[in-house]
Amino acid sequence: MHIAITGAAGFLGQRLIHRLLKRGELRGEPIRRLTLIDQSEAATPEAAGVEVVAQARDITAPGAFDALLDARPDVIYHLAAVVSSAAEADLDLGLAVNFDATRALLEGCRARGLAATRLVMASSVAAYGGELPEILDDMTALQPQNSYGTQKAMCELLINDYSRRGLVDGLVLRLPTIVIRPGRPNAAASSFASSILREPLNGEEAVCPVPTELELFVMSPETVVAALLHGAEVDGEAIGAFRAFMLPGITVSVAEMIATLREVAGPTAVERIRHDPDPRIQAIVGSWPTRFHTRRAEALGFPRDTDFREIVEAFRVASTS
Amino acid sequence: MHIAITGAAGFLGQRLIHRLLKRGELRGEPIRRLTLIDQSEAATPEAAGVEVVAQARDITAPGAFDALLDARPDVIYHLAAVVSSAAEADLDLGLAVNFDATRALLEGCRARGLAATRLVMASSVAAYGGELPEILDDMTALQPQNSYGTQKAMCELLINDYSRRGLVDGLVLRLPTIVIRPGRPNAAASSFASSILREPLNGEEAVCPVPTELELFVMSPETVVAALLHGAEVDGEAIGAFRAFMLPGITVSVAEMIATLREVAGPTAVERIRHDPDPRIQAIVGSWPTRFHTRRAEALGFPRDTDFREIVEAFRVASTS
Ligand SMILES: NC(=O)c1ccc[n+]([C@@H]2O[C@H](COP(=O)([O-])OP(=O)(O)OC[C@H]3O[C@@H](n4cnc5c(N)ncnc54)[C@H](O)[C@@H]3O)[C@@H](O)[C@H]2O)c1
Ligand SMILES: NC(=O)c1ccc[n+]([C@@H]2O[C@H](COP(=O)([O-])OP(=O)(O)OC[C@H]3O[C@@H](n4cnc5c(N)ncnc54)[C@H](O)[C@@H]3O)[C@@H](O)[C@H]2O)c1
Repeated sequence: MHIAITGAAGFLGQRLIHRLLKRGELRGEPIRRLTLIDQSEAATPEAAGVEVVAQARDITAPGAFDALLDARPDVIYHLAAVVSSAAEADLDLGLAVNFDATRALLEGCRARGLAATRLVMASSVAAYGGELPEILDDMTALQPQNSYGTQKAMCELLINDYSRRGLVDGLVLRLPTIVIRPGRPNAAASSFASSILREPLNGEEAVCPVPTELELFVMSPETVVAALLHGAEVDGEAIGAFRAFMLPGITVSVAEMIATLREVAGPTAVERIRHDPDPRIQAIVGSWPTRFHTRRAEALGFPRDTDFREIVEAFRVASTS
Repeated sequence: MHIAITGAAGFLGQRLIHRLLKRGELRGEPIRRLTLIDQSEAATPEAAGVEVVAQARDITAPGAFDALLDARPDVIYHLAAVVSSAAEADLDLGLAVNFDATRALLEGCRARGLAATRLVMASSVAAYGGELPEILDDMTALQPQNSYGTQKAMCELLINDYSRRGLVDGLVLRLPTIVIRPGRPNAAASSFASSILREPLNGEEAVCPVPTELELFVMSPETVVAALLHGAEVDGEAIGAFRAFMLPGITVSVAEMIATLREVAGPTAVERIRHDPDPRIQAIVGSWPTRFHTRRAEALGFPRDTDFREIVEAFRVASTS
């Protein structure tokens, strides 16, 4: 089993690598080789019996995928991307990294006859927009209101078409908001969703910029990684008529998140949250859909977090161990 | 008023040109100039006071749109495309003509600051697919099951994003099946839909390859052209969160089409239809959606055919005059 990962130095890439090496197999076959691509140097962990090759490469450069594809990987995780704010600030950069590089990857697979290679890409809830129904489902239109979501939606269509034509075996998973991300608060509008739990659990102050009634559709990092693994293993024939769908997140309000924090870490933790409304963040996050019937993902056996308390407990265990 | 038309030598391009010249104005302004692009030589009609420039050009060639865009048209109709069967037979050609050329056109508008130029493009019912609901609406997902529909859907997303960013004033109209097309039967799966009316009205034989219960979602050529005109005039602000939607066709069964033929042209006309089932055509056409709530188009005032009999009458008048 040879697995290639683009964006391997990123948050999900790193977690996925560790989980793959710990597991040692994918699709019932021992992992013999990992090829890692990122523009930043990806950390290359050691693992007995696994050849790990890290390539520092800009995926927008001509031929960036040649070495990777010449080695005919069985599974490709395509995770390299510029995030929402960067794609909005620079249309050319977003199109080049998020769309053109994906197309080049597809063309590379086609040119080498990698019809059986499973290509798993991460899309996003940011691809939704417009006059959404109260509960979304697998047939809700993608009408993105940002360039990042537009580029992701275009990739979904192209991967679906290349898969339908038998040129590659593609699958695109739309990820919910990931909570709890480790690390520091960042510029992402959703940063607070991890911050209001992570910082208090670490004994630090956090700012909550939204009303506590606001809801989010979330998935834990562990479950996202489990979904990526499942995405490599799920039967291509079973996927159905379109090769992209939303993963089964859970809907939680900020109030429920804070109540869970109280249960897990007590009232002092909750007192570390300062409420400081920010209409800009409220407007962005408040426009994201939060209720989905994720029938396709469930029928295919994709995992779901069972309850929010487990997410918080798991983070506490991980950060104190 | 300067209007540019790509695909000007095609079926809709030619009809649009004649209607524009007959009308003499668009958005209340006299038409002074028409720039026509097509790879085939477009017929250039004479009209007093209108400068008509025809450019024989392959729109996939570098700089193909330069002369057109340098002249800063007020309205661009982007109708050049390779049709469904050609795009399915040749993925590269479909991507180059249907997608890359559209992107080049958008980039050309952006580079020249043509933010106020209304770009009207034609998309298609072929962009729909997958597990569709019984009645589709403006929020039904595009999950195309063919490369042509994939390329049209990608253009919709890109035009929406360029419009949202204020780089152009775009609008994409998804067209129903056009009935009655003049001319001869062709390789299109929907060819019979025009043929079973047109040939009998012209005293010729026609073949009906589908069961008469089969339904279609149709629009007359006159109404499509009226919709294209309206597409140039509708207020950009009013369009809403997504710059693409389905036009209001009408749902008719083949049995109703034949009954209308009988009303208009009598039983001898109907006897000219030979029923010869073709499972391949049945499978393709039977998968097309036929029932839509086209709320966005209706709210914006797009025209609809009032009844099927009028479509047949109009064709008879046109072809005997
Ligand atoms: N984390 C989330 O909440 C979330 C949600 C939805 C979707 N996604 C998607 O999941 C994927 C991974 O997300 P993440 O959180 O790990 O992101 P991340 O930003 O941590 O990682 C992305 C990686 O891509 C690399 N990259 C960017 N441009 C590159 C280029 N031109 N050449 C080579 N490498 C380049 C970056 O160096 C980075 O290491 C992305 O596709 C992202 O869009 C993430
Ligand atoms: N007629 C329909 O039933 C229907 C339905 C849905 C959508 N559409 C869309 O409406 C538009 C017009 O349709 P039509 O019926 O007039 O099609 P058509 O085939 O009659 O006209 C298309 C024109 O595009 C030109 N063209 C193709 N490739 C070109 C290239 N590389 N460079 C320059 N010109 C090129 C062709 O020469 C042709 O004149 C198309 O975008 C089509 O996809 C049509």
